Amino acid sequence: MTSIVESGTGPQTGITEDAHRTWELDRKHVFHSWSAQDSINPMVVTAAQGSYLWAGEGKKYLDFSSQLVNTNIGHQHPAVVAAIAAQATTLCTIAPSYANAARSEAARLIAERTPGELDRIFFTNGGADANEHAVRMARLHTGKHKVLSAYRSYHGGTQLAINMTGDPRRWPSDNASTGTVHFFPPYLYRTAFHATTEEEECQRALEHLDQLIALEGPATIAALILESIPGTAGIQVPPPGYLQGVRELCTKYGIVFIADEVMAGFGRTGKWFAVDHFDVVPDLLTFAKGVNSGYVPLGGVAISPAIAATFGSRVYPGGLTYSGHPLATAAAVATINAMEDEGIVGHAATLGESVIGPALRGFAERHRSVGEVRGTGVFWAIELVKDRQTREPLAPYGGSSPEMGQIVAAAKEKGLITFTNLNRIHVVPPCNISVEDASLGLGILDDVLAIADALIA
Amino acid sequence: MTSIVESGTGPQTGITEDAHRTWELDRKHVFHSWSAQDSINPMVVTAAQGSYLWAGEGKKYLDFSSQLVNTNIGHQHPAVVAAIAAQATTLCTIAPSYANAARSEAARLIAERTPGELDRIFFTNGGADANEHAVRMARLHTGKHKVLSAYRSYHGGTQLAINMTGDPRRWPSDNASTGTVHFFPPYLYRTAFHATTEEEECQRALEHLDQLIALEGPATIAALILESIPGTAGIQVPPPGYLQGVRELCTKYGIVFIADEVMAGFGRTGKWFAVDHFDVVPDLLTFAKGVNSGYVPLGGVAISPAIAATFGSRVYPGGLTYSGHPLATAAAVATINAMEDEGIVGHAATLGESVIGPALRGFAERHRSVGEVRGTGVFWAIELVKDRQTREPLAPYGGSSPEMGQIVAAAKEKGLITFTNLNRIHVVPPCNISVEDASLGLGILDDVLAIADALIA
Repeated sequence: MTSIVESGTGPQTGITEDAHRTWELDRKHVFHSWSAQDSINPMVVTAAQGSYLWAGEGKKYLDFSSQLVNTNIGHQHPAVVAAIAAQATTLCTIAPSYANAARSEAARLIAERTPGELDRIFFTNGGADANEHAVRMARLHTGKHKVLSAYRSYHGGTQLAINMTGDPRRWPSDNASTGTVHFFPPYLYRTAFHATTEEEECQRALEHLDQLIALEGPATIAALILESIPGTAGIQVPPPGYLQGVRELCTKYGIVFIADEVMAGFGRTGKWFAVDHFDVVPDLLTFAKGVNSGYVPLGGVAISPAIAATFGSRVYPGGLTYSGHPLATAAAVATINAMEDEGIVGHAATLGESVIGPALRGFAERHRSVGEVRGTGVFWAIELVKDRQTREPLAPYGGSSPEMGQIVAAAKEKGLITFTNLNRIHVVPPCNISVEDASLGLGILDDVLAIADALIA
Repeated sequence: MTSIVESGTGPQTGITEDAHRTWELDRKHVFHSWSAQDSINPMVVTAAQGSYLWAGEGKKYLDFSSQLVNTNIGHQHPAVVAAIAAQATTLCTIAPSYANAARSEAARLIAERTPGELDRIFFTNGGADANEHAVRMARLHTGKHKVLSAYRSYHGGTQLAINMTGDPRRWPSDNASTGTVHFFPPYLYRTAFHATTEEEECQRALEHLDQLIALEGPATIAALILESIPGTAGIQVPPPGYLQGVRELCTKYGIVFIADEVMAGFGRTGKWFAVDHFDVVPDLLTFAKGVNSGYVPLGGVAISPAIAATFGSRVYPGGLTYSGHPLATAAAVATINAMEDEGIVGHAATLGESVIGPALRGFAERHRSVGEVRGTGVFWAIELVKDRQTREPLAPYGGSSPEMGQIVAAAKEKGLITFTNLNRIHVVPPCNISVEDASLGLGILDDVLAIADALIA
């Protein structure tokens, strides 16, 4: 979660009259996600453009969060804004049972980019319901019921999705279980397997998974869901061979492999999908966010021919009013075309290789508060520690810390919006951020890390 | 579900080249809700306006379904289309942690219309996640876990929402339970309580609920969720006193009362909310669909002060990327203002009293295939039977029948799109349909019911 939390109890100073009314109505009537309602003080945002947003007092911020890592093409891309306005004039909504031009074209563009033969698209409103429906498909396809998911993962906020989640956001909702069993994915920096190399971590993580499947019983397991590269939970890029190993285990035991690409998909990692880095084809691939940069709520599931065939003559027992919503899919069509026309995915890859990666590795060398940096494309994590030897995190697992609060506030004061989670800062700007703006933000982060260094000195 | 299913394997005849491409891409790439993928043949819709839509071959249809009972203000209302285009130009998306003008204003307009002091709004993407979050709030507020829900209900397509659902759409997803127990709501026409009057049905249904709570254990029950007037499951308007009785039982036993107004809310019943007919204030009220007629995906939960206070100093552990989406909430603002300016809620009430109600009661007198008609506003069901004596439904519970298929096809052939479920035709046009168009559609239904009469003769 980003933590755009102001101290104090009033709106930001110097705010316009309109922005002040927005703030007052918000405090009176809006119930906010993932928050204690009395202790938040939301910043009023009045405008946004590209990699920037403007607050109610006129201050301009560089957005290194892409909001919740969704504005892959930045704010207010003119081609997508125009497409939304045009579709609104033509046809805003139509029920899922009809065929519609925007929905058909979005499905084609997505199917052409998903790996392998994941050519049938079931549209949802976002990532949580995409994962919910993917599991339903897997359960009905296999006739089995359990779901394996990784610790340090996030799969959404609805009951099944949050039960599958493997980070502390799950804990308050484990009062009604939905058949999930968690496993340890590779994470060498905090290895669960006493490994010392990436190769060893990979091999041992696969052995662990194999054991877990045997002990839970392959005949009981419908699906394994895994973020191809974990997002909010830490951007642990899996070692070479891990996803292939998972694919092989799933195939061997008749388990549906669901790749959750809600955050990693659509250019974020420098390829269309994160699985493309590993030459792996899952059975189901879920997406949202980057598919249309969140300009209109949209998510979905890309489906293998074998699973689609299960629902060829048998009714798929699931749906939603806005499945394949014309406005949302028109935004996806414009977004994907803009990403293609402007070479945005390649740009993200280059930024990772030539700008962000080198800068972050420099931070790791120069800043004692930096335990590890990792990532690819415009999808990076800086893991902050109190002590590089013990690797004690700068905030406890499942909590925050005054130090992390100060770091976020310092960045914001310097005009940089960051995405933070527990003891990590994620570097996740839009995929089309300019080299200049990326460098500007990285410069601010460099200064902020000096503050972090001082805090733990 | 509407059943817009064509026979045959090609698109409708006389279709334009563009519409043909839409159809082909749909068949190749779009996975449809609630369908066996090989047996559907979706009609291509190219345009819509008010209560009408146009198919790819140019044929015009009167929309008596409001799609999935969501276009309460009809298709392409100019004020809402303009608001969407204007908001798209200003700010399409912003993360939930900020404050935003469209979100604040939508929350105010909704809070002013919800009953009692349900003044805090948590925005979601649709009805299913609204219900999921409402239950989470109830569980954390009460510290209890079970949920009571009614048979013959629909609460959404995600795992918890579908488990709460009390109609056959739940059955394939009961492989992972989420703590739901079902009760019998009042339904005199097919009474579970051997009642002979509405009064008796009401009293016995409340006794049944009281017994069920005692046997399940009040200390285990977090919430009771109930469609104020059930939607797809049959539009059984509850008898006077029932919702008050439910409210009293919930208060007595410390159970959070969740009114699901996803389909019944925002004018559909001739009042802003269906609970307004009964002078009842639930603890949580969920909405979607009519809030912005589905022009942009949006849902939400209106929250009582007591439950909001639970999350005053304690974090509410739930959220979603698009909570309070600017484009979706801007559409809600324009929709609610248009409904107010144009007196659309009052118009829906008048239509029910003076046009639809009298016509349907006439059908019940004249057509032997009609077992019962019931409803209010623009929210009516016609229950079709093979035999008025035995009340045997024209399609079995959980299934379809050739007769129902023929009835839908006959209406469509005559240019009328209907909403059907099992053995029922629902009369659910836009709330602002003209008296002329309503009469036109009712005339077609009259002809279609004559066909139904002949089928069972």
